[in-house]
Amino acid sequence: MPHIPLDENLPGITGLLSYRQDTALPIRQLTQILLRGESTLTEGERELIATVTSQGNQCRFCTAAHTAVADVLLGERETAEMVKNNPEHAPVSAKMKQLLEIARRTQADARTVSLELVEKARAAGATDLEIHDTVLIAALFCLYNKYVDGLATVTPTDPAFYDRLANILKTSGYMPSPNRYASLNETK
Amino acid sequence: MPHIPLDENLPGITGLLSYRQDTALPIRQLTQILLRGESTLTEGERELIATVTSQGNQCRFCTAAHTAVADVLLGERETAEMVKNNPEHAPVSAKMKQLLEIARRTQADARTVSLELVEKARAAGATDLEIHDTVLIAALFCLYNKYVDGLATVTPTDPAFYDRLANILKTSGYMPSPNRYASLNETK
Repeated sequence: MPHIPLDENLPGITGLLSYRQDTALPIRQLTQILLRGESTLTEGERELIATVTSQGNQCRFCTAAHTAVADVLLGERETAEMVKNNPEHAPVSAKMKQLLEIARRTQADARTVSLELVEKARAAGATDLEIHDTVLIAALFCLYNKYVDGLATVTPTDPAFYDRLANILKTSGYMPSPNRYASLNETK
Repeated sequence: MPHIPLDENLPGITGLLSYRQDTALPIRQLTQILLRGESTLTEGERELIATVTSQGNQCRFCTAAHTAVADVLLGERETAEMVKNNPEHAPVSAKMKQLLEIARRTQADARTVSLELVEKARAAGATDLEIHDTVLIAALFCLYNKYVDGLATVTPTDPAFYDRLANILKTSGYMPSPNRYASLNETK
């Protein structure tokens, strides 16, 4: 049961973004720029950064949602699974391994993002902007994770829910759109 | 030394908001709505929520900055000091004591914002929107704290720096403004 009255048809973050739309708009805009705007990181790579951050905060809704988005963008389910549970052997570039570690440390305790780690990321090809964006994406998903769990929003248990949400986020991105969540609760 | 090249005259968050201005804009807008927009919480109370969150993340820059803003808005330095170091006896309302505890738990582990705590806040007069905004302000300052420390920005040691920054934030709020930081590095 959420701590405040939210639309029952909009679990997790979706009900919160509907509850206070004036604050939702800049949150959506920031996410759209960082996760869908021009970048030398692919959309799938950026969703993996969101996924490991959410996993670190143990936010079940956001972890399931962004795993599903990464899966649909990458066209397979192995990479996100490995990045979460066996990161050393995950099929991502050496650069992404370092950037994902920067995201994990930003989530756990941002003061532990060391010069040594940043230099490793640079040696693996990461640019200043990629390092910046990785930290800011991780910081943004800490906002989401804490917003979602601090207000005790509902976490659906049906994996098909997250596949439907992922398809909306793949097709329409993060900005508000008409009837955005119309397909979210389809049960057939 | 920051992990990425930032303007030396803009320490802490100020250099980051200048480094990538397209992402800075929605961050600034969200902050302006939450901390300066219409609310049944005073601007000083909202800065106290930002302060305890930043203290919880041990972000020295943000803690010093928002302590200074709370001080200048409240017209005294005792309340922020007590809220940080002796919260039980801090001269704030019973409602604010519960909201500050909600903020602390959102920062530490958002899943620990319990129904019991929310009910205590409600019994002390907190509205749904105040509870929502407290969680979202705490979540937003987790973003700021992690952004600031994850990129190893500079933390000035001179308390007068934070008083100058606080006056800018009191007078101009959080939105971009021309020559915004002109007075930041005055040394006389």
